[in-house]
Amino acid sequence: MSFTYQRLNKDDVALLMVDHQAGLLSLVRDSNPDEFKNNVLALADIARFFDIPTILTTSFEDGPNGPLVPELKEAFPDAPYIARPGQINAWDNQDFVDAVKATGKKQLLVAGVVTEVCVSFPVLSALEEGYEVFVVTDASGTFNLTTRDAAWNRMSQAGAQLMTWFAVGGELHRDWRNDIEGFGGLLAGHLPAYSNLMQSYAQQTAS
Amino acid sequence: MSFTYQRLNKDDVALLMVDHQAGLLSLVRDSNPDEFKNNVLALADIARFFDIPTILTTSFEDGPNGPLVPELKEAFPDAPYIARPGQINAWDNQDFVDAVKATGKKQLLVAGVVTEVCVSFPVLSALEEGYEVFVVTDASGTFNLTTRDAAWNRMSQAGAQLMTWFAVGGELHRDWRNDIEGFGGLLAGHLPAYSNLMQSYAQQTAS
Amino acid sequence: MSFTYQRLNKDDVALLMVDHQAGLLSLVRDSNPDEFKNNVLALADIARFFDIPTILTTSFEDGPNGPLVPELKEAFPDAPYIARPGQINAWDNQDFVDAVKATGKKQLLVAGVVTEVCVSFPVLSALEEGYEVFVVTDASGTFNLTTRDAAWNRMSQAGAQLMTWFAVGGELHRDWRNDIEGFGGLLAGHLPAYSNLMQSYAQQTAS
Amino acid sequence: MSFTYQRLNKDDVALLMVDHQAGLLSLVRDSNPDEFKNNVLALADIARFFDIPTILTTSFEDGPNGPLVPELKEAFPDAPYIARPGQINAWDNQDFVDAVKATGKKQLLVAGVVTEVCVSFPVLSALEEGYEVFVVTDASGTFNLTTRDAAWNRMSQAGAQLMTWFAVGGELHRDWRNDIEGFGGLLAGHLPAYSNLMQSYAQQTAS
Amino acid sequence: MSFTYQRLNKDDVALLMVDHQAGLLSLVRDSNPDEFKNNVLALADIARFFDIPTILTTSFEDGPNGPLVPELKEAFPDAPYIARPGQINAWDNQDFVDAVKATGKKQLLVAGVVTEVCVSFPVLSALEEGYEVFVVTDASGTFNLTTRDAAWNRMSQAGAQLMTWFAVGGELHRDWRNDIEGFGGLLAGHLPAYSNLMQSYAQQTAS
Amino acid sequence: MSFTYQRLNKDDVALLMVDHQAGLLSLVRDSNPDEFKNNVLALADIARFFDIPTILTTSFEDGPNGPLVPELKEAFPDAPYIARPGQINAWDNQDFVDAVKATGKKQLLVAGVVTEVCVSFPVLSALEEGYEVFVVTDASGTFNLTTRDAAWNRMSQAGAQLMTWFAVGGELHRDWRNDIEGFGGLLAGHLPAYSNLMQSYAQQTAS
Amino acid sequence: MSFTYQRLNKDDVALLMVDHQAGLLSLVRDSNPDEFKNNVLALADIARFFDIPTILTTSFEDGPNGPLVPELKEAFPDAPYIARPGQINAWDNQDFVDAVKATGKKQLLVAGVVTEVCVSFPVLSALEEGYEVFVVTDASGTFNLTTRDAAWNRMSQAGAQLMTWFAVGGELHRDWRNDIEGFGGLLAGHLPAYSNLMQSYAQQTAS
Amino acid sequence: MSFTYQRLNKDDVALLMVDHQAGLLSLVRDSNPDEFKNNVLALADIARFFDIPTILTTSFEDGPNGPLVPELKEAFPDAPYIARPGQINAWDNQDFVDAVKATGKKQLLVAGVVTEVCVSFPVLSALEEGYEVFVVTDASGTFNLTTRDAAWNRMSQAGAQLMTWFAVGGELHRDWRNDIEGFGGLLAGHLPAYSNLMQSYAQQTAS
Repeated sequence: MSFTYQRLNKDDVALLMVDHQAGLLSLVRDSNPDEFKNNVLALADIARFFDIPTILTTSFEDGPNGPLVPELKEAFPDAPYIARPGQINAWDNQDFVDAVKATGKKQLLVAGVVTEVCVSFPVLSALEEGYEVFVVTDASGTFNLTTRDAAWNRMSQAGAQLMTWFAVGGELHRDWRNDIEGFGGLLAGHLPAYSNLMQSYAQQTAS
Repeated sequence: MSFTYQRLNKDDVALLMVDHQAGLLSLVRDSNPDEFKNNVLALADIARFFDIPTILTTSFEDGPNGPLVPELKEAFPDAPYIARPGQINAWDNQDFVDAVKATGKKQLLVAGVVTEVCVSFPVLSALEEGYEVFVVTDASGTFNLTTRDAAWNRMSQAGAQLMTWFAVGGELHRDWRNDIEGFGGLLAGHLPAYSNLMQSYAQQTAS
Repeated sequence: MSFTYQRLNKDDVALLMVDHQAGLLSLVRDSNPDEFKNNVLALADIARFFDIPTILTTSFEDGPNGPLVPELKEAFPDAPYIARPGQINAWDNQDFVDAVKATGKKQLLVAGVVTEVCVSFPVLSALEEGYEVFVVTDASGTFNLTTRDAAWNRMSQAGAQLMTWFAVGGELHRDWRNDIEGFGGLLAGHLPAYSNLMQSYAQQTAS
Repeated sequence: MSFTYQRLNKDDVALLMVDHQAGLLSLVRDSNPDEFKNNVLALADIARFFDIPTILTTSFEDGPNGPLVPELKEAFPDAPYIARPGQINAWDNQDFVDAVKATGKKQLLVAGVVTEVCVSFPVLSALEEGYEVFVVTDASGTFNLTTRDAAWNRMSQAGAQLMTWFAVGGELHRDWRNDIEGFGGLLAGHLPAYSNLMQSYAQQTAS
Repeated sequence: MSFTYQRLNKDDVALLMVDHQAGLLSLVRDSNPDEFKNNVLALADIARFFDIPTILTTSFEDGPNGPLVPELKEAFPDAPYIARPGQINAWDNQDFVDAVKATGKKQLLVAGVVTEVCVSFPVLSALEEGYEVFVVTDASGTFNLTTRDAAWNRMSQAGAQLMTWFAVGGELHRDWRNDIEGFGGLLAGHLPAYSNLMQSYAQQTAS
Repeated sequence: MSFTYQRLNKDDVALLMVDHQAGLLSLVRDSNPDEFKNNVLALADIARFFDIPTILTTSFEDGPNGPLVPELKEAFPDAPYIARPGQINAWDNQDFVDAVKATGKKQLLVAGVVTEVCVSFPVLSALEEGYEVFVVTDASGTFNLTTRDAAWNRMSQAGAQLMTWFAVGGELHRDWRNDIEGFGGLLAGHLPAYSNLMQSYAQQTAS
Repeated sequence: MSFTYQRLNKDDVALLMVDHQAGLLSLVRDSNPDEFKNNVLALADIARFFDIPTILTTSFEDGPNGPLVPELKEAFPDAPYIARPGQINAWDNQDFVDAVKATGKKQLLVAGVVTEVCVSFPVLSALEEGYEVFVVTDASGTFNLTTRDAAWNRMSQAGAQLMTWFAVGGELHRDWRNDIEGFGGLLAGHLPAYSNLMQSYAQQTAS
Repeated sequence: MSFTYQRLNKDDVALLMVDHQAGLLSLVRDSNPDEFKNNVLALADIARFFDIPTILTTSFEDGPNGPLVPELKEAFPDAPYIARPGQINAWDNQDFVDAVKATGKKQLLVAGVVTEVCVSFPVLSALEEGYEVFVVTDASGTFNLTTRDAAWNRMSQAGAQLMTWFAVGGELHRDWRNDIEGFGGLLAGHLPAYSNLMQSYAQQTAS
């Protein structure tokens, strides 16, 4: 049974950020808030670093779900922004699908809140349409680990690949020499443990 | 390898509630009792909200397994109710299978106690007969996480899809506009964290 | 070193419910939301069952902290309700202290959100004034277990007694014969596992 | 600040087994059922091995709480057996207190279900009366770890000593030479890991 | 993709108990000793209850691995007993394979210590030879959860089905009416929580 | 036994930040790096918000322990900065003790890495000299939870009070009205869950 | 669906050790440092015991990632050592691929830091080229369990087999008689629990 | 209430190593074997580094408890070695007490297996005799966390101080300048994470 490595390629990929809204974030309890916030912003920084077309979408911003978190609005001021009038599966919204298709990419990174609904549903829809789909698991969140495990299983069995923001960054960058300073800065900003290594290194080699 | 999204459709689905009996519930220790009770009742409310044909079945109600929990009796007063005289796998009971077939549905939601027996066995039987089977994992319970993990693995490898009650509700509802009040109320009743969002919203927009 | 059992006595006790507000509840992550909601409401039912003078207080209801959860408003329609204009420690609010003193009780049950601030601060203040103070730990919540453990330690070392709603109910009731039906109903409503026992019992003794 | 070691002495100690009833055991979720059953029976075997006066008490055996587990009935056929008509704190039952006093012992081992009520209340009462009280923590059980931790804290702060069945056995036996075979057999019966050591030893020294 | 339910059938199945030796059991730390001992003995009782051909095998009994635990020797006095002279994978021992083939069964239940070696290796070998293989996960043990998870994954991906002793018992028994007393007794002996239900039931229906 | 509430008072308190160095931070594993970084910086922001005299100290910055993290250097450019030449207990360094005494405060907040050494030792020394000592537990870190629990116990038994940065902030601020904007901003910057509440509130009250 | 057991064969296998560098090891938090160090060195000892061709590679040794840990340098003084100038996926480095191909082996054991990047990427590349790939999971490490689980899933779904160092050792050794002393010594050096069994055995059979 | 810092002083302290025997170590499950072995050996190295009088004692070495682990025998070839003929509490053995007294020290470090018996009993006895007692918690082990927590509580309430080997080392060393090389080597040998820092430092400062 031959295997083809569906490898993230920065020229082939788009990012879908689904329902990272202030209210819905209150529901996320499969990671702690400091960690989750960092993961979401790290993914956003990766998308900007690699100029990846990004699509933002929200569900009922005017209701209890709350507004898109301001950091994402600021990170992607020119991104398509689809405020869905009611569709739970973003893929049921034609504007959203059009925006995805308009990117012309065949690889989709998907992250969102909550995992088993706002992430899983468009992931399964996109797989059905033939996209290579990569779930950014740690920039997605939900109620608890039971829910997360069930959602991961359903998506994985359907052919989605489970990744994390750090793996996405590494697979896209390919080679440190493409931009050592830039990529190092990106990691330092979101990995305190790596930042510490850099601090020690800077001091020790300076002396 | 093409993938077809087996998407829950409220017109194509039936719900099987297997052995949620007062005695057997004492055995459930892979979630806490408050959470598990809420999950089971949430699933029941979803079935009623979407008018999904529901079948209740029990095993040895007159013995130590105890009676069906009264909330489920009350939720589905007219549902087929198969008190199995001895079959451990509900699918071995012809009345149960007949009731399933009588619904005319091809998608089956299954929840029950305990997961690796009362859920797994009919799930595997139904898969063999060609049904699309969705396990409502968090409305199912068993002795411990080891047992749960093994049961999930066996069902998933056989082709069952692992879901949770919230994902089931979202996939069935499709669009908030189909009934904003109704669906919101359902969520508020079973997701305290979402209910809190609604309370804050109501106050802040009222002022 | 002689020990005196400071035993809860329904004639000597008042209950302080501090900042159970819809917004603040979003911060609680040392128990799951189903469990925590049940614990808070169980404590409220206990207070009503034993006619315990109860004082409600909130912090900045009109801001992000959100309104008092409606179930508590409904449970105690006639309770003193002190919406503090800014004091973080409820004991710094003279109306609150006056309300406590007006009860004439020497034993105080305290629960609230978040544990290390809204509970700890008035607990320490009340201990200093000579009250016997009992923290209802499981009807109090905070960010994580580290925070909870530190807060419990500080209060316990100061002389507060750590309890849970079930222990409070049992210590107040003293003897089942004081009201078997009533107390049994209270437990059944908040302990699904106990309710299951009652269901099995009812069926088995009826047959 | 001088310290006196309140050391368990087999001639000074009585054992109180409180409410180990079939129904109430369903509520215990701070240890798994296999482990908890073993701990309770190990404590019973210790009491019999050292001829420690033992008092059994139950609460509402005829109701949902269920009967005393049969193994304890069989282990102590001649022990005082106080079926309390309603008192939640066993120490409120005069027959129980009389039975304790009739033993003439100053040290009390207490185990029961649930920890924060059936154990804590008589522990605090006995401390007030001047007994040296030792809680057998692992032969006591309750709803969850939060409840357990609060109950342990309250008892410990009042002066009770937290022990486990193995520590009780060791402190009572004092010296293996008092009965090597007997004590070894007791351990082997309740510590599978120790039994394994004995099996390997027996084979290897036999060869 | 059609699915065939490989259902355990008591006439088609053999049990392989691999290296449950006193020394090796000291290495098991993915479950606690009380629980693991119970699981192994429950599986043995199931095999005897259904007259399932059982094969015992050990590795270096005379060395540090220690002797087969005596309970298994006693449970299966007439079972083929292959003390392997050195083969790590039991399937590399011709006597063992011959014993398996001599049973004439196509379904194999496998349990052993440690999971990733003594269980995994013969499981993979048996799958290659076309057997239907069922791992009794909770009667198998190893060093830690990381190791267990990796081993489960490898076996599952190869086609083995992950089960637990309780699921094995239920799938083999099929219908309580085949022997209500016998099967109930088997469960009561190994599920303290179920035994409690039976005790309460017996008392309540007797009164 | 009367109790005096040693309440943090912004005019009476100094902060000691001990050994938050880039290398030593690699050793911290009782919280995750995102959370720990946030906690340390939150404490720093509190100290600046309330103009609390702060003392920085490090151990062997030029060696593997690495430099003080740059965020702390920047936060307190004018703080006494004692680079200890070798003393493990900062209190053994006369410059450090002099700096503490020079603040003229009687209350000390202490945080550092690692908890059982760099925090515990000066905490015990300061207690001996009569200071009121408050450990900021979540801005302190160490190897694992076993180590943390032992260290907390030792300090607590000696009279230190265990707090967290959020409790410190609340106890110092006393009343929101002292600076609503400022304190709210401080919380929003370090509590993503609270920031989300503020976002939703801002939107909902704006509309 | 026929299954072929891809069984590790010491003549067919090569080992790839990827980025076990002093700095990167600081990032590993899905196992504790004592355990992880032992696992890595155990794998190295296995490779040496079976004379398995081993390839070492590092990423930016001169920067914050730090040098290869000295124990690995010493263990494999003559192994190909590819210090990659920038490629994140070792398989993108032609020298590395050449070194792998030069071994002439078809089975690859891969371990490294961090799992989802330094291990996953070459694993997927090697699978695509038709190698049989075995991940040594416990000699690989990463930030947390979420990341680990996602990485394991991606590799497993692609066809990699998840193993642990102990399973690798057992599958390679095949039969204790090939070298009882040597293999026993290897285990004793890395499994303290097994070493204890050997100590007891040695004493008991000596007496 | 004044507090005196009982500070470990290398001239005032003796170490008691109680029952670290090969068989008994099989019972330890509150830490993993790699970690526990490292902790015990680290404590031994500390004792040798500071020339602390050390006393070894064992219980029934010739039986299933097994021999003292060889590393400890080798570490302390000249230490008093009391093989107790039967006393469970080492303090009941006059030779042991004599050996302790012969050291002339007032501070005792105690570690052993299992915590609630072999450590707790002599700790309580020594406290009664007026010694300052420090439990080295992480070089002591027992069956599970419940047992450990109860034992820690009992000892702490009696006045023992809970420490860990790293805290012991730091408190004894006082100042790095007393022997930078020696103490650094000791840490590097037992703290892989610290060793990594040293490796990186060495390389970076060498370049």
